[in-house]
Amino acid sequence: MTPALPTAFVATLHALLGEDGWRTDDRALEAHAQDNSWRHTLPAGVAFPRDREQVVALVRACREHRIALVARGAGTGTTGAAVPMEGSIVLSFARMNRILAIQPGDRCAVVEPGVLNGDLQQALMPHGLFWPPDPSSAEICSIGGNLACNAGGPRAVKYGTSRDNVLGLVAVTGAGELITCGGPYTKDATGYDLTHLLVGSEGTLALIVEATLKLTPLPVTQAGLRVLYRDADAAAQAVSRLMAQPVVPTRLEFMDAGSLELLRRNGADVPEAGAMLLVEADGDHDTLPYLLQALAAAAEGDGLIALDVAMEGSARETLWAARKALSPALRSIAPGKINEDVVVPVSRIPALVAGVQALSAEFGLPIVTFGHAGNGNLHVNILYHPDDAGENARAHAALPRVFALTLALGGTLSGEHGIGLAKRDFMAQAFTPATLAAMRAIKGALDPEGILNPGKVLPPV
Amino acid sequence: MTPALPTAFVATLHALLGEDGWRTDDRALEAHAQDNSWRHTLPAGVAFPRDREQVVALVRACREHRIALVARGAGTGTTGAAVPMEGSIVLSFARMNRILAIQPGDRCAVVEPGVLNGDLQQALMPHGLFWPPDPSSAEICSIGGNLACNAGGPRAVKYGTSRDNVLGLVAVTGAGELITCGGPYTKDATGYDLTHLLVGSEGTLALIVEATLKLTPLPVTQAGLRVLYRDADAAAQAVSRLMAQPVVPTRLEFMDAGSLELLRRNGADVPEAGAMLLVEADGDHDTLPYLLQALAAAAEGDGLIALDVAMEGSARETLWAARKALSPALRSIAPGKINEDVVVPVSRIPALVAGVQALSAEFGLPIVTFGHAGNGNLHVNILYHPDDAGENARAHAALPRVFALTLALGGTLSGEHGIGLAKRDFMAQAFTPATLAAMRAIKGALDPEGILNPGKVLPPV
Repeated sequence: MTPALPTAFVATLHALLGEDGWRTDDRALEAHAQDNSWRHTLPAGVAFPRDREQVVALVRACREHRIALVARGAGTGTTGAAVPMEGSIVLSFARMNRILAIQPGDRCAVVEPGVLNGDLQQALMPHGLFWPPDPSSAEICSIGGNLACNAGGPRAVKYGTSRDNVLGLVAVTGAGELITCGGPYTKDATGYDLTHLLVGSEGTLALIVEATLKLTPLPVTQAGLRVLYRDADAAAQAVSRLMAQPVVPTRLEFMDAGSLELLRRNGADVPEAGAMLLVEADGDHDTLPYLLQALAAAAEGDGLIALDVAMEGSARETLWAARKALSPALRSIAPGKINEDVVVPVSRIPALVAGVQALSAEFGLPIVTFGHAGNGNLHVNILYHPDDAGENARAHAALPRVFALTLALGGTLSGEHGIGLAKRDFMAQAFTPATLAAMRAIKGALDPEGILNPGKVLPPV
Repeated sequence: MTPALPTAFVATLHALLGEDGWRTDDRALEAHAQDNSWRHTLPAGVAFPRDREQVVALVRACREHRIALVARGAGTGTTGAAVPMEGSIVLSFARMNRILAIQPGDRCAVVEPGVLNGDLQQALMPHGLFWPPDPSSAEICSIGGNLACNAGGPRAVKYGTSRDNVLGLVAVTGAGELITCGGPYTKDATGYDLTHLLVGSEGTLALIVEATLKLTPLPVTQAGLRVLYRDADAAAQAVSRLMAQPVVPTRLEFMDAGSLELLRRNGADVPEAGAMLLVEADGDHDTLPYLLQALAAAAEGDGLIALDVAMEGSARETLWAARKALSPALRSIAPGKINEDVVVPVSRIPALVAGVQALSAEFGLPIVTFGHAGNGNLHVNILYHPDDAGENARAHAALPRVFALTLALGGTLSGEHGIGLAKRDFMAQAFTPATLAAMRAIKGALDPEGILNPGKVLPPV
């Protein structure tokens, strides 16, 4: 049984947030019990602050009563970072969802954390601007969540991840103090860089209550190439060539043979091949043909089967729809899926793909690999039937081997999903004890009582 | 008199570093007593470690004996960050100057901190790559110093500053622990971002002993525009227009009327105008004309006097030589110069320039403003005769007003020089007490005894 919250604490929250700002009814608790990792724990209550002052008061109350506080955007994360623990309360940013300013002359926007990524993009469009992070949940995920997990997406190869696209933050530390770092400028050598430290810290150091986001002018037009290769190795070699020349693609996605088979099984018109790259560029009508030419030249090489240019329009949309459909389509092979987003140096993609194929054979399970090859950030999907005890055990035994392979290749655990609970216990393989100790010291500095999202990111000592 | 170093400490350093690795002779002390801020304090000794193990041992010895340790690259900084304090020792990275790896396929290089920026660029050239940070001291400054101060330069408008161009670090904290963060990959959502935190921390949190740098392919060609305007306001408006369209210039430099007068006085062929922009783009031979066209279209507008295209070659070189000569040429007006590198939102450049001109009139001193307008990062030079007591007093009274103006416009103290001693006492105007307290807490977490470069960056409590 969950221990009841202290009466004085509940009274404080009631007074602070009002009837509709502090909820403990079953429906509210159930709605905030899980994220997209399917972990499930009911919180002891859900707070809906309306402004930063309420967040400060809430954190101070939690600190005083040693109540764990789990910040939540839209709950689309895949690692359990937003899943509560027993006895904790959830702080939902759903009501702090205002776009406070759009400053086209400074190429920035100021937002509250609950603004949805998709809503921001809509608001920016009339200004000819966009915010680059484009996780596949972009329509429904929140900016606060994007920042907390350092979300990426296919466009990151050209435009960077969330961390690369934030200029300043206002946040409430675990000490209950409001801090302000960075601002609407693009160059900063003034004091410690708290802004980038907080991005990706998954609500364990401070709660972001306002963000100044770096915007990019919308390109005039885009176009793509579909390139088929004999095998994964030939495609991976092409990725290295593509990334070694000056034209940076807007997106550079890799799909292995298993991904292509899946696309065909679902009716997509994809020829037989060992692997495929989707390469995209953006620019204006004058320059784009030259950019595509440079990319096509780099894509060519040993093992190329076919290269098709898909200009703007339906051919291009069909291509990307097929890529987007991949993740849900995995369920047609097996109902269970462990999806990790490991990163390796681009030159080690061939070794990663070969190593994953070897693990697939060793564990007797399909493993489908696709993703953001330009960043060396591949989604490795281990497929299994959860009700089949043997498959279940083999899938979970294969996972540490995927991480060990990644680390042996000089890579790291996550490129855009984050750590949360899902990868927390692998952190000790990714970092030395001294490095983890430094991270814990920083956690202690900003959250002295350890009330912010305890048990996430860092493994227990 | 400086107190003598403890005998046991000196014995440890002798045993660790050998005769030539630990020096206390006058010549060594004098050579490490100042940086480019002209502050001067003799250290108690200078250590020249050869590898990270020696750095670890050195920091541990300093920690044990509570000796302050000031890390030093090439001493080209302008804020006093590398200037020792009484009784401290200097750690020179001059002997840790190896390029450990260049990995063109991963677009990265692994270097020790003592490698000179210029030497790295030379080594990268055969690979068709470069490292973007280009401070004006690029030929002779060290990568470690660039990272410690988050150095920038004109190219930052397109390619970012040092912080934007580092993928991973190995560093020794003030606790004497070796930590490793990031690596040869471009996407990372794995634990706390210590990498970007250490960049710009000026040797106060940890000492960088190895850096994995993000490289960029060298563009095929470059070309520039010289644009003259009626006044600073018209030029500043053009900066906003230039930054609001999709073609990002490689460099976008602003020069006010005082700068132009100075150029003419030194024989440069610059027509009469109220302000000038140098705008540059890079690309290949096919696309560059279109990029220049887009930039020229954005540069045009109210107040434009003349727009000249200077393609690759001598015309372009002459332009940039004139820009580079500006800083030393200031001495022809007055021997004393306070040079600050404030940052404002791009849209506030007109207000900054006007405000600085008002301060020039109020204090009766020439103030010349030029710099990296695309980032809102302008160098404000207050000129005076140091031997004239009145001018000296007025110059130092004008400085806080420049910072107050910058902060009132939503800007910050430094874009690329850093804080060091020079701007330390203005930090309390730039940040709230709670934000400074958070920075101090992080300092305490990574450097518990406060031995790393004490008294720099953060003002005394």
